[in-house]
Amino acid sequence: MANFRTVKGFRDLFPEDCALRNYIFDTWRQVARRYGFVEYEGPVIESTDLYKKKSGDEITAQLFCFEDKGGRDISLRPEVTPTLARMATARQRDYKKPMKWFQVGSCFRYEEPQEGRSREFIQFNADILGDAGQGSDAELVALAVDVMLAFGIKAEDFTIRLSNRQIWTQFLMEKNVPEEHWTTFLSIIDKIERARPEDTAEKLSKTGLTLEEVRGFMASVDGGHPIFASLRADLEARDLWKYVRIDATIVRGLAYYTGMVFEVFDLKHGLRAVAGGGRYDKLCALISDGGVDMPSAGFAMGDVVLGILLSKTPGAQMGITEYLNAQMGVEAYVVVADEAQRGPALAAVQALRSAGVKVDFSMSAQKVGKQFQAAESQKARFAVVFGAEYPQVQLKNLVSREQALVAADALVATLQEALKLPVMGPLIA
Amino acid sequence: MANFRTVKGFRDLFPEDCALRNYIFDTWRQVARRYGFVEYEGPVIESTDLYKKKSGDEITAQLFCFEDKGGRDISLRPEVTPTLARMATARQRDYKKPMKWFQVGSCFRYEEPQEGRSREFIQFNADILGDAGQGSDAELVALAVDVMLAFGIKAEDFTIRLSNRQIWTQFLMEKNVPEEHWTTFLSIIDKIERARPEDTAEKLSKTGLTLEEVRGFMASVDGGHPIFASLRADLEARDLWKYVRIDATIVRGLAYYTGMVFEVFDLKHGLRAVAGGGRYDKLCALISDGGVDMPSAGFAMGDVVLGILLSKTPGAQMGITEYLNAQMGVEAYVVVADEAQRGPALAAVQALRSAGVKVDFSMSAQKVGKQFQAAESQKARFAVVFGAEYPQVQLKNLVSREQALVAADALVATLQEALKLPVMGPLIA
Repeated sequence: MANFRTVKGFRDLFPEDCALRNYIFDTWRQVARRYGFVEYEGPVIESTDLYKKKSGDEITAQLFCFEDKGGRDISLRPEVTPTLARMATARQRDYKKPMKWFQVGSCFRYEEPQEGRSREFIQFNADILGDAGQGSDAELVALAVDVMLAFGIKAEDFTIRLSNRQIWTQFLMEKNVPEEHWTTFLSIIDKIERARPEDTAEKLSKTGLTLEEVRGFMASVDGGHPIFASLRADLEARDLWKYVRIDATIVRGLAYYTGMVFEVFDLKHGLRAVAGGGRYDKLCALISDGGVDMPSAGFAMGDVVLGILLSKTPGAQMGITEYLNAQMGVEAYVVVADEAQRGPALAAVQALRSAGVKVDFSMSAQKVGKQFQAAESQKARFAVVFGAEYPQVQLKNLVSREQALVAADALVATLQEALKLPVMGPLIA
Repeated sequence: MANFRTVKGFRDLFPEDCALRNYIFDTWRQVARRYGFVEYEGPVIESTDLYKKKSGDEITAQLFCFEDKGGRDISLRPEVTPTLARMATARQRDYKKPMKWFQVGSCFRYEEPQEGRSREFIQFNADILGDAGQGSDAELVALAVDVMLAFGIKAEDFTIRLSNRQIWTQFLMEKNVPEEHWTTFLSIIDKIERARPEDTAEKLSKTGLTLEEVRGFMASVDGGHPIFASLRADLEARDLWKYVRIDATIVRGLAYYTGMVFEVFDLKHGLRAVAGGGRYDKLCALISDGGVDMPSAGFAMGDVVLGILLSKTPGAQMGITEYLNAQMGVEAYVVVADEAQRGPALAAVQALRSAGVKVDFSMSAQKVGKQFQAAESQKARFAVVFGAEYPQVQLKNLVSREQALVAADALVATLQEALKLPVMGPLIA
């Protein structure tokens, strides 16, 4: 029997990876709550039907779908928006509109693993349901910007490429392009930057359009279009418009978008989009079979591309280091220098932890030197030594190397105070 | 087309449910970190082989298993210990022993949904790898106790029922019961409290034992057994032994336990076990095909039974209420009383949020009364009104009903100070 491995496309998060993931989670949550969003979560499994035709062909082709033992056709969720629409329409009477909801959790796509893509990934989803105004669109773009800034990713590192599907709907109507060509047309626009011009021209010709007229229209949109006026005024008032570029090539792959669409891109490394979203005014009605008509908009940010960008952005490192140090270590390490004092040492460990102090110790007899090594490897700021001096104990600041004898029954109060002092300051106030 | 529903056995977490889940997550993480545990996470999908014969028949019968598009036989994880053993043995050279690792995430079992059981549930797993001593066993029991206490579940509400599989191994050897009957025997002991005595006696007779000798032995163990001496001394030093009852009927269903085993039970409501675990000294060697021999122990606590117990325990409510209020609301609500001031109001919203204040506002024009209603429903402590007085704004304490005029450009500093004052104290220091 060979050793077991992770299934292809899946990831193990060892403690250092998990701490980075937690930093990403905490930052997402903190910024979303600052915006008045509340968190929800759906099941990671849904009926496959929920995704068919709702999410578009690209996603349904990548579904992790199977039949459960009860014969149900179910899928690991490839995205969260259909779940959100299902939940929100089922209980919308219970919540005041607009509903500002966010979510953090795993999604799954069966695609070829590569840098920036794994089969299980984590998404942050933020949506505003029950409001059709551009104020909601602006609030979502602002949230996306502030999330990036909270990670230490600055104006020179990223941009929001923003458009609106309606400018293309209007264009296609003006040009009398029959509606059955619209989806094909949007997928041509989606790929226009990467495709060879002659291929794009040929594909366009089937819709009766020329590359020149499309390019001309795109240039006019990128220079400014009345559809963005109110969104722009809102974001300018927040001094956030500087992060936005109008870009008519942004149409988003998903079938359900109806209005504003945007993607967040890094500016230095040519990575895939860090986040993307838009307005989907018809999805709730579709999911609830016409029962609940709730105009909505939202965006999702994944952890994989974001993680790569964080690792490549020097300005993002300080926040990560600070968080990891706080999460991976302990504050104090109790050293049992004399096994006869293990009982009082255990009592002290318990008392310190009950007081909220992060404490570790050696659970079996160990040489004192080994115990101090463990204290250092766990980044403990203080060591407390239980030895011959008991009922007094040695309190050592492992950073400043100062030490003092303290009565064991005053240890909790003394250590709590000492933890409030500056790292290199006096050992005891 | 009918409305979509959750797949049978799966749960939606609406914001109020999700806040409770987050309270449970945060409490688990906080206590585990206080004990010096570090967090890891594995994939929710593993090769089905990883569970076959490792977890025991009960779990493999309930596997959510399927074939992926690449023909792999994979399963949604029913528990996390095999993943942990796979990860830890693969990278054990990189970590100092003992490794104190914890995890929080979804698991899946295909069993009939009922109170206390759903097909997707969340587990907290805490394990100590690379240490064979009873000091590790004690550390895990202590962690389980402190987690319960951190939830406001007290000595009168729960107990730890603890045993050791070796007492049965010794008993079976003394009684010359052939090894092929041991698994059957342990499953008889596992059910002895619920089964009819005559059925138990009949089953036991096939192993050559009588109910009387088994009962006699159990009574002697429950009164005290030398195998528990060191664990007991450790937990007595921490003043935690009072939460423990020796109970020889605890054997745990999983196949891989080799020593100490325990379960956490509520004392008032007869619920299923809240948590359970034990020592599994051979699992790492089994998973790594003999490559890494790493004695280990751990326990898991699920969110479902714990959630029911929390809802039935009055002492647990205060912590929940406090957490939910902090998580579900905002600190300030910006009221746009005059749409001409929307620009400065948006600038203030942005400045407050950038300063870390949780702020909401109406994203479209609304009557002032409606905006105040929204402020109250979001539990905002302060309202800031942008109206005719601009560039001054009204700062209102929505709890004490006091109010004051503040210069808009002093708003951030003033509100940050006001948020530090007692809720019913003066509006401005």
